[in-house]
Amino acid sequence: MPKIEILGLVAALLTTTSFIPQVYKAWKEKSTKDISLSMYLIFLAGLILWAIYGFAIGSLSVMVANGVTILLVIAILVAKFKFK
Amino acid sequence: MPKIEILGLVAALLTTTSFIPQVYKAWKEKSTKDISLSMYLIFLAGLILWAIYGFAIGSLSVMVANGVTILLVIAILVAKFKFK
Repeated sequence: MPKIEILGLVAALLTTTSFIPQVYKAWKEKSTKDISLSMYLIFLAGLILWAIYGFAIGSLSVMVANGVTILLVIAILVAKFKFK
Repeated sequence: MPKIEILGLVAALLTTTSFIPQVYKAWKEKSTKDISLSMYLIFLAGLILWAIYGFAIGSLSVMVANGVTILLVIAILVAKFKFK
């Protein structure tokens, strides 16, 4: 695998896993007042398009990275609706 | 431009601009308690790697999308430190 692709995978790993601490914080503290609902709704729409784009160009890493982030963002959105 | 690239650009536009409502909310309400600091620090590291990756593969859209998101994330981080 070309070195530059390793950089892309590490970047994808960071931008994907970065949402885990926000999911953890929202569900542990049961407080989401400061989190922007519109941010996560627009972000979710973008992630879905990225996942479709990844499928269309046959890129497993784009599909997987965005697929995982979609699940994490949904967990934040559920917390946002549940804990206001 | 192939149709599929338009999908990629729209996805990039959504995932980039989605941070604007969070920047606005954090600075307007001066409250960032529920926002995860570690999320944005890890996310920022990932964005920087994505921007370097975009430069290395000569992709202006990857560089620009991640460059803009870096600025927005920095605005959220400054708010996070300022308004606790």
